[in-house]
Amino acid sequence: MDALTTILEHRSIRNFQLTSIDDTILNKILEAGTRASTTGNMQVYSIIVTKDPEKKKKLWEYHFKQNMVLQAPVILTFCADFHRFSQWCRQRNAEPGYDNFLSFYTASIDALLVSQNVALAAESFGLGICYLGTTTYMAHKLIEFFNLPDGVVPVTTIVLGYPAESPELTDRLPLKAVIHEEFYHQYTSEEIENLYFEKENLPLTSRLIEENQLDNLAQIFTQKRYTKKDNVTFTKIFLEVITKQGFMNND
Amino acid sequence: MDALTTILEHRSIRNFQLTSIDDTILNKILEAGTRASTTGNMQVYSIIVTKDPEKKKKLWEYHFKQNMVLQAPVILTFCADFHRFSQWCRQRNAEPGYDNFLSFYTASIDALLVSQNVALAAESFGLGICYLGTTTYMAHKLIEFFNLPDGVVPVTTIVLGYPAESPELTDRLPLKAVIHEEFYHQYTSEEIENLYFEKENLPLTSRLIEENQLDNLAQIFTQKRYTKKDNVTFTKIFLEVITKQGFMNND
Repeated sequence: MDALTTILEHRSIRNFQLTSIDDTILNKILEAGTRASTTGNMQVYSIIVTKDPEKKKKLWEYHFKQNMVLQAPVILTFCADFHRFSQWCRQRNAEPGYDNFLSFYTASIDALLVSQNVALAAESFGLGICYLGTTTYMAHKLIEFFNLPDGVVPVTTIVLGYPAESPELTDRLPLKAVIHEEFYHQYTSEEIENLYFEKENLPLTSRLIEENQLDNLAQIFTQKRYTKKDNVTFTKIFLEVITKQGFMNND
Repeated sequence: MDALTTILEHRSIRNFQLTSIDDTILNKILEAGTRASTTGNMQVYSIIVTKDPEKKKKLWEYHFKQNMVLQAPVILTFCADFHRFSQWCRQRNAEPGYDNFLSFYTASIDALLVSQNVALAAESFGLGICYLGTTTYMAHKLIEFFNLPDGVVPVTTIVLGYPAESPELTDRLPLKAVIHEEFYHQYTSEEIENLYFEKENLPLTSRLIEENQLDNLAQIFTQKRYTKKDNVTFTKIFLEVITKQGFMNND
């Protein structure tokens, strides 16, 4: 299956078979991860592999007890990591200047591009994956659990295993919703209506609105799934984490 | 070519043919971008397509006058974007709570996963790409240039075109340098020596050390390529940008 087809066939998998993943295959997938471009080829990221059932159970607790974390044979936690690089610099009489927010963001970019390579490489082996957005919310717990030193912050997680389901492709906004030609195109009210029309008229959307007893899909996002209250709480936690891990010495 | 091979064959391309990219192909590549997982399927990102030669020239100036920006027929600027989503919420009597740092980071993750899909999809069509790390350094200029509203921040850029070179694969640290089993493995000094040995003994490295008249590769990073001074300067700029675009109302 060519790369384009693998990309187009992606769906998040949340139910997995018990089958474990062969180490040779896992290593090929991780190796594929490392082929992603990174800033200056510094490779300022790390990947933590969790297979041990007891440890998966702890991760399951941190990740809001989503069942897929227990089911999947492998959990990969992707970290922004300037620790290794800075240690190398110090051993070379080179003073590292990577304890600032830009460096955190640079390392985040590295880690995230690698994670998407890993996701697609895994899918090319017939595995299924799901990203866990809870990683940034629970970063403080993960740092403690994995014993992450200065300069290391978890930024995303992928659960990995052989699919026990084959869900439909999920909907996307029309391409023109996310593409701008030459300049940012400010949306008129009517354009927003049109761009969200299909999404708002899916059977899934009607079901969610009924279940949540709300007026519309947007309210499900703002009042249930991604509320201001939660965002503010997790902002505090995540900024504290970035500071504690030594990435906010900005002068 | 299967997805794994496409991933393994990636090299950054910095010299391009004059050949333009057919719109049908470009649209397929962008469509492939949109198949990436995003947080809650909110798709909180935008892609700005630059083809116009005059506008490319401006981008070339912003991106430190790297020639590839002028040469490549298409420049794609990937933005974290909660503007569109929030506008939709407001039109639905749903109060968006996405003006905080966590939301900025969430939207960054979306944009970056999409960018890597785009990179690989492009490569599956025989195109070459290069990421521009200068995007975050020059975010303030790009915001002005593209006229980006509240809730939109450029986070990375890809230049895209038919390769006029076929460079060797670049080196990577051994896989074990970036992988940790179950817990974060603190590196001993000796481990660091071993993990960086191959990189430090490449002919390219010797050449760079000679050119820069420094003692070692690490010093090239800390004293020339990614200095503390630059990181601090660009941290200030980028944090101001995030604030100005309305992502730092954290309570």
